Amino acid sequence: MQLDYSHQQNWHFESGQHQSPINIDDQSVIDWQRGSAIEIDYQNQVSEAHNSGNGLEVLVNGTAILNYRKFNLLQFHVHTPSEHQLNQHTFAAEVHFVHQALNGTKAVIGVFFELGAPDPVIDSIMQHWSKPGQFAIKLTDFIPADPAYYHYLGSLTTPPLTENVEWYIIKEPVTLSSEQLSFLQTLMPKNNRDLQAVNDRPILYRP
Amino acid sequence: MQLDYSHQQNWHFESGQHQSPINIDDQSVIDWQRGSAIEIDYQNQVSEAHNSGNGLEVLVNGTAILNYRKFNLLQFHVHTPSEHQLNQHTFAAEVHFVHQALNGTKAVIGVFFELGAPDPVIDSIMQHWSKPGQFAIKLTDFIPADPAYYHYLGSLTTPPLTENVEWYIIKEPVTLSSEQLSFLQTLMPKNNRDLQAVNDRPILYRP
Repeated sequence: MQLDYSHQQNWHFESGQHQSPINIDDQSVIDWQRGSAIEIDYQNQVSEAHNSGNGLEVLVNGTAILNYRKFNLLQFHVHTPSEHQLNQHTFAAEVHFVHQALNGTKAVIGVFFELGAPDPVIDSIMQHWSKPGQFAIKLTDFIPADPAYYHYLGSLTTPPLTENVEWYIIKEPVTLSSEQLSFLQTLMPKNNRDLQAVNDRPILYRP
Repeated sequence: MQLDYSHQQNWHFESGQHQSPINIDDQSVIDWQRGSAIEIDYQNQVSEAHNSGNGLEVLVNGTAILNYRKFNLLQFHVHTPSEHQLNQHTFAAEVHFVHQALNGTKAVIGVFFELGAPDPVIDSIMQHWSKPGQFAIKLTDFIPADPAYYHYLGSLTTPPLTENVEWYIIKEPVTLSSEQLSFLQTLMPKNNRDLQAVNDRPILYRP
């Protein structure tokens, strides 16, 4: 079909088909041997830990190498219960490490929490919650030992829901205690966006 | 502001602010020393060269390494006059090499043409235009000697105008003859989309 370049205002712009979160179906992922291992270099000093109005948000600096490129860490925040699902399973919570590259590309590393032993990072945050001033956390404690992850292209999960976000969802969950989960839920009882359709998107798996 | 997770259907999805083409203002680019050199490995065999209905389109295979990641070449096509501008200058034509990575990311390498010596690739295409069967071209002849390029995040320039497209615009133009330009214009006299607003996007320059 020949396009009408004299009436471009009538052209239709398609968007909104690449939203997040999604269910990751382990049976339909594409093996991605070329994917690079996630390399994080997060600083331990917390600039600020507060309730964003929508739950725990922590401002901290650092960098990550994702798919061979350098991203700057902007903040991390927590959703209860998890936003992504793995084989239709919803986890107790999900932490999102939000990054941005120099060209504007956003990338989020997601880590699932299930109930179990207390998490040392959330423990530090709870200890310093009502006290002013900076404190240190060891963010590498948040990251599971098994580096396997899923990767797909999606969106922010809160308005403006902007697309062009690279997602890196780590397969192995970490744990938090029921007391820690209660602390997070006190800040915001439920802050998970509804599941979105996968549509034509490939989900890659980097073992 | 607290988000209403019970009425997510009222959340507003923002898009359409990252469209292409744009004018590249050389005075406001960000120096991008970390950007990788464009490495192309295009095959010489043309599967098909035809008029897509909107001008010359050539199906050819190959790969490119863009910002450290591997992309597959899908096709290239030509716009007359150029879609992107450089410091408000419109070129005689612009070729777009359209790529896709395994995760679905699209990336386009753009090369400007100005009038001058004939281009050997277009020459081969014109010689084989009315003859059935495959033929060979040397696509590296299309790529300027100077590897400097601009990089930004944009969109397709024809419907569905989808965003999440990485653009790599090579600074140095190549040349084509006025006869070659006439051939391209016979297929489609004018097929350049109107300029779009840059908005908040950084334009990177990799010298």
